[in-house]
Amino acid sequence: MVPTSPLDVADLGDRVHKSLEAFLGRQAATLDAIAEDLGPVADALTGFLLDGGKRLRPAFCYWGWRGAGGADTDEIVTAASCLELLHACALIHDDVMDGSDTRRGKPAVHRRFAMLHRGEEWLGDAESFGRSAAILLGDLCLIWADQMFNESGLPGDARLRAAPTYDAMRGELMAGQYLDLLEQVLGGRDVDRALRVARYKSAKYTIERPLHLGGILAGATPQALDAYTAYGLPLGEAFQLRDDVLGVFGDPAQTGKPAGDDLREGKRTVLIATAVTRASAGQAAVVRRLLGDPGLDDAGVQRLREVIAETGALDHVERLVEERTAEATAALAGAPIEDDARGVLAALAQAATRRRG
Amino acid sequence: MVPTSPLDVADLGDRVHKSLEAFLGRQAATLDAIAEDLGPVADALTGFLLDGGKRLRPAFCYWGWRGAGGADTDEIVTAASCLELLHACALIHDDVMDGSDTRRGKPAVHRRFAMLHRGEEWLGDAESFGRSAAILLGDLCLIWADQMFNESGLPGDARLRAAPTYDAMRGELMAGQYLDLLEQVLGGRDVDRALRVARYKSAKYTIERPLHLGGILAGATPQALDAYTAYGLPLGEAFQLRDDVLGVFGDPAQTGKPAGDDLREGKRTVLIATAVTRASAGQAAVVRRLLGDPGLDDAGVQRLREVIAETGALDHVERLVEERTAEATAALAGAPIEDDARGVLAALAQAATRRRG
Repeated sequence: MVPTSPLDVADLGDRVHKSLEAFLGRQAATLDAIAEDLGPVADALTGFLLDGGKRLRPAFCYWGWRGAGGADTDEIVTAASCLELLHACALIHDDVMDGSDTRRGKPAVHRRFAMLHRGEEWLGDAESFGRSAAILLGDLCLIWADQMFNESGLPGDARLRAAPTYDAMRGELMAGQYLDLLEQVLGGRDVDRALRVARYKSAKYTIERPLHLGGILAGATPQALDAYTAYGLPLGEAFQLRDDVLGVFGDPAQTGKPAGDDLREGKRTVLIATAVTRASAGQAAVVRRLLGDPGLDDAGVQRLREVIAETGALDHVERLVEERTAEATAALAGAPIEDDARGVLAALAQAATRRRG
Repeated sequence: MVPTSPLDVADLGDRVHKSLEAFLGRQAATLDAIAEDLGPVADALTGFLLDGGKRLRPAFCYWGWRGAGGADTDEIVTAASCLELLHACALIHDDVMDGSDTRRGKPAVHRRFAMLHRGEEWLGDAESFGRSAAILLGDLCLIWADQMFNESGLPGDARLRAAPTYDAMRGELMAGQYLDLLEQVLGGRDVDRALRVARYKSAKYTIERPLHLGGILAGATPQALDAYTAYGLPLGEAFQLRDDVLGVFGDPAQTGKPAGDDLREGKRTVLIATAVTRASAGQAAVVRRLLGDPGLDDAGVQRLREVIAETGALDHVERLVEERTAEATAALAGAPIEDDARGVLAALAQAATRRRG
């Protein structure tokens, strides 16, 4: 028997997909009623949302609800699925900011609209049109996330109760994104600062807040929410650290991004900051020369990988991932939450930090 | 005695300012608690929101509420003020998309962050940093708009009732923005298509939906909402047409934008589409040569203005503004709304369409 991924317990992956499909179908019809010209907008967002994504944030939200005693309903699955739209906004805007060409193994949204522009032989600059369209599509995802949540069918009082958490989560995401941006232009060599980015950009946004959101919707006790924090923050850091490692050492077939993409972008992550801190003069010279070179070739990627491994930064970060994941898992033991959720959250901790893409 | 602007009846301008100031003060403290590095984010948004803006959308929302019998409370002023944050998102992202350097007579947000980057001698490209920061700040405004609405103190049931209208308004705004973008790359010479952009980008978003939002929050009857539509849609078109005229013929001291900014950007508005449709071969050649030239000088702006006036497009659009405004005002006569709101809405129709900036 094939072991089930914790992301698929209670058929969650499939149900998230279906609820996104239903919502996006309605939104496509609304756009079409405004103007047929909006077809490419609906198509691009439908493609983006239905054609990939690990559904990790909906899973944490759903199990946050279940852990707090919420029943398995389609309404909570729909509400949780809205987090995929919020995340789509972050990714689409991120790709514009980074100038990344690829997302989930396909052209990024701004590239897709640049290609549309070229194909139609429209006036003006295709790249600029692509970026502008992607800014608007990201905005639309941010808006649609709320709308999907509002239309989930969850009772009004639950939605009102969850609003402050939802708003805080989104604000923290954008604050984390700005701090990340800042870290790049500061040439971040400070491990603590890089960890702070990981905390806001991932730990709170990806894990703690989705758990809280689900918990609060179900009327969780403060003790249960505290347990979600004790589990969510270390796990979220481990999740981001795994992301950092995959951005450098990941297999393109599994990450959906070109090999060494973070190196070419010069991303200042905890992994890179650690490598820079530990580097010898010779190693530091290699990093300075190659990191952030947009034209970095495979040999350059390989050279940087070697240096990062040789400084011991890779082992160090892998150890941090292990420690943080163990800390998260330990926090589940005495947590005042439902046992089935406890089991799935333990499995999700492994899935989030041992993934390859 | 100085005649009071309808935007200041019930001290509205001042109260909107104060409620934004209070909200932004709280948000700045929240950002500061995350990281001191977020100071420039809070400063830029506080400057943007408190240092300009006509407060037109909050006014329509507030009077939509009062017209439906809502009492004059601080809660509705705060809820209405959130529309300034939503609009800030649209403007900040718009300036990135257009590459506009100036907004409200000051550097656009992306320029401000590019200057910060240069001043601090950070790594990488200053313009790219500025654009990325502005994308994130616009996202933050979109999020904060909801949060300000949620924290307005209005009862939960009213907020739940208004959510579908709020979501539709925001979706229409982004759809209108995309159609506008598309019109530019299509070289729009179609007056009907340009009017459709005006309808979604302005008529619904700027006037009809804010009125509905206020009305629904106050529990308006369907008849009152219909009256708001009959008033709001023609007025909104007139508002956008006035914007089109100001973008070409406006005085920089009053618009806060350089003279002829829309001409330099090559904006395809109803005014331009009308001029192109009516142009002789010689006039059309001038338009083709000068419209959309980023380096267009004052003489070029003057030449294009003359051609647009000579084709009769300016007179035609001014006539449309008059007709639509009269239509809007006529719709107020029998509207089943409170008399004080009827009076202020009539004055707002004049203020929105006779403005110089």
